[in-house]
Amino acid sequence: MTDAYARAGVDIDAGNATVDRYRDVTRHWSHPDQLGSLGGFSGLFRLPGDASRALVGSTDGVGTKILIAAALRRYGTVGADLVNHCVNDILVTGAEPLFFLDYLAVGKLDPDVAAEVVAGVHRACRENHCALLGGETAEMPGVYRPDHFDLAGTIVGLVALDAMPDPNDVRPGDAIVGLPAVGLHTNGYTLARAVIGEEEYGAAFGETTFGDALLAPHPSYLNDVRAIRAVAKVKSMAHITGGGLLDNVPRTLPDHATAVFEASRWDEPPIMTEIVRRAALSFDECYRTFNMGVGYTLIMDIADVTAALAAAPGARVVGFVQPRSDDQPRVIVRPRRA
Amino acid sequence: MTDAYARAGVDIDAGNATVDRYRDVTRHWSHPDQLGSLGGFSGLFRLPGDASRALVGSTDGVGTKILIAAALRRYGTVGADLVNHCVNDILVTGAEPLFFLDYLAVGKLDPDVAAEVVAGVHRACRENHCALLGGETAEMPGVYRPDHFDLAGTIVGLVALDAMPDPNDVRPGDAIVGLPAVGLHTNGYTLARAVIGEEEYGAAFGETTFGDALLAPHPSYLNDVRAIRAVAKVKSMAHITGGGLLDNVPRTLPDHATAVFEASRWDEPPIMTEIVRRAALSFDECYRTFNMGVGYTLIMDIADVTAALAAAPGARVVGFVQPRSDDQPRVIVRPRRA
Repeated sequence: MTDAYARAGVDIDAGNATVDRYRDVTRHWSHPDQLGSLGGFSGLFRLPGDASRALVGSTDGVGTKILIAAALRRYGTVGADLVNHCVNDILVTGAEPLFFLDYLAVGKLDPDVAAEVVAGVHRACRENHCALLGGETAEMPGVYRPDHFDLAGTIVGLVALDAMPDPNDVRPGDAIVGLPAVGLHTNGYTLARAVIGEEEYGAAFGETTFGDALLAPHPSYLNDVRAIRAVAKVKSMAHITGGGLLDNVPRTLPDHATAVFEASRWDEPPIMTEIVRRAALSFDECYRTFNMGVGYTLIMDIADVTAALAAAPGARVVGFVQPRSDDQPRVIVRPRRA
Repeated sequence: MTDAYARAGVDIDAGNATVDRYRDVTRHWSHPDQLGSLGGFSGLFRLPGDASRALVGSTDGVGTKILIAAALRRYGTVGADLVNHCVNDILVTGAEPLFFLDYLAVGKLDPDVAAEVVAGVHRACRENHCALLGGETAEMPGVYRPDHFDLAGTIVGLVALDAMPDPNDVRPGDAIVGLPAVGLHTNGYTLARAVIGEEEYGAAFGETTFGDALLAPHPSYLNDVRAIRAVAKVKSMAHITGGGLLDNVPRTLPDHATAVFEASRWDEPPIMTEIVRRAALSFDECYRTFNMGVGYTLIMDIADVTAALAAAPGARVVGFVQPRSDDQPRVIVRPRRA
């Protein structure tokens, strides 16, 4: 499928096989207070002392976007990438953030660099009204090159169980509202790096540079989603991360529904168009590797759309739900007209 | 101070400078539900809806012990290292584990290896009655060598605020009870690797091999601490990780107290003795780098000691508390007689 990605060194088949193996090795026991997850974006755990609410946890990393930050020695925005990614992952359950912890691993510890990274994490936590509860900074010569690092983090949020979206409410004819992506966010960077060399990072790209376009921070959709949910009944949400629209949207769709996206309805970030062109990706590869301009999706009755769009500037209708028979795909993307 | 460690590529001064910088960049804002931490082992956050309890979070990694696991292609026990380390970190607040999330980053994803790592994480979670709520597996060519990986994790536990140990209760004459370490646990491996080469991992070391002695899993002290706290009033606890007795015990001592350890009172794991000998470490370096045989400490009134020792096999008195004047160290270790 994603041959281009495999050529860049990321093996999607191995990823899927690993998920299957994880299911095998963990299925014989789960904690009694653990609740089923919603599409696997995050895990739910009964709030101690309150059966009506759950804690929601998710762990993620920044991925190889950090290699671009390291090459440009720009460490201030990877914290926002990390925190906002995690905020959005638990947001699909309807959860609001409570607290965050970060893990920073370096080859050689430079206090200025580490402080710049953590200041960015702290700033993004504050913007999401999320406590930065702690973290770990590990100096690991031999694992990381002296100028390399890795950054991961864990968010814990809270959700009222009766306020969680329920994908079973999704009906044919429902609208899909999309929130705009500003760039690659935190996915597809191994492929991007294969076609945009380090020597180009400083070069002009439209009104910006390749480096700036590649480092544009992953946005938090918390405020937009709050605003939309205040005026519209949202039935299902997806955070468009690795796997794109094709793999993420099905995770929160009922079996009988197909999501149809019409690419003419939204803009593609220019950096994505450029990467797709250079890598000569197939249409399917594009939509399984990148968000292609849609960062987050919300499914709702068509009657709720006007209020939803008014509540969140930038939101637009990006598609609709149609009935699905067994042999049909879960997601269809209709291309722009050339 | 720890010259030997600096020679091995880990900079303790940079570590301390980084902690200071973190304090600077985060001090202008903290979340209103964030509570002061206890010695920095973990962070506390008010439990939503219940002012008498707090969630306790901590993030940690396995460190360069993973390089030994990778060299021996033994991936089954690093999960226990990670989970048990985290369990012990929140245990010093008196917290019981609720749930855990792991972060596994690899250079090249091998589903069998990843499944072996995560099976170990899951097994250790189950042994600590802790949910494995989720995790992230990232394939990051260019950051990690194909045969390398990193493993970190985050634990969230729960504590009743009035059941938290209070270091202010510590008095001169109190006893320090220690729980035995089985080896290096998860600290000091960069130094250990500098003096024990990969070619020796298979060689005999006493009744075991160097590899087995180095990979002995970090134990969980949860059951021992539960058993002791059921029969004794524990005033303060410390998990002896990086920084050893010298840096970890002061974090949960009042200003006016000095902890005096008498090394003749416990056994040193043979692998530690061997590393110390080969690296020609000073006494101070030893006790700031390694646990030196004491994995966890509990301070209590001397009247509680008999019950405590009976409750936890392996526990022994390792020292006592004496009054401290301003110019005295917070921790003194009296050497074994040669």
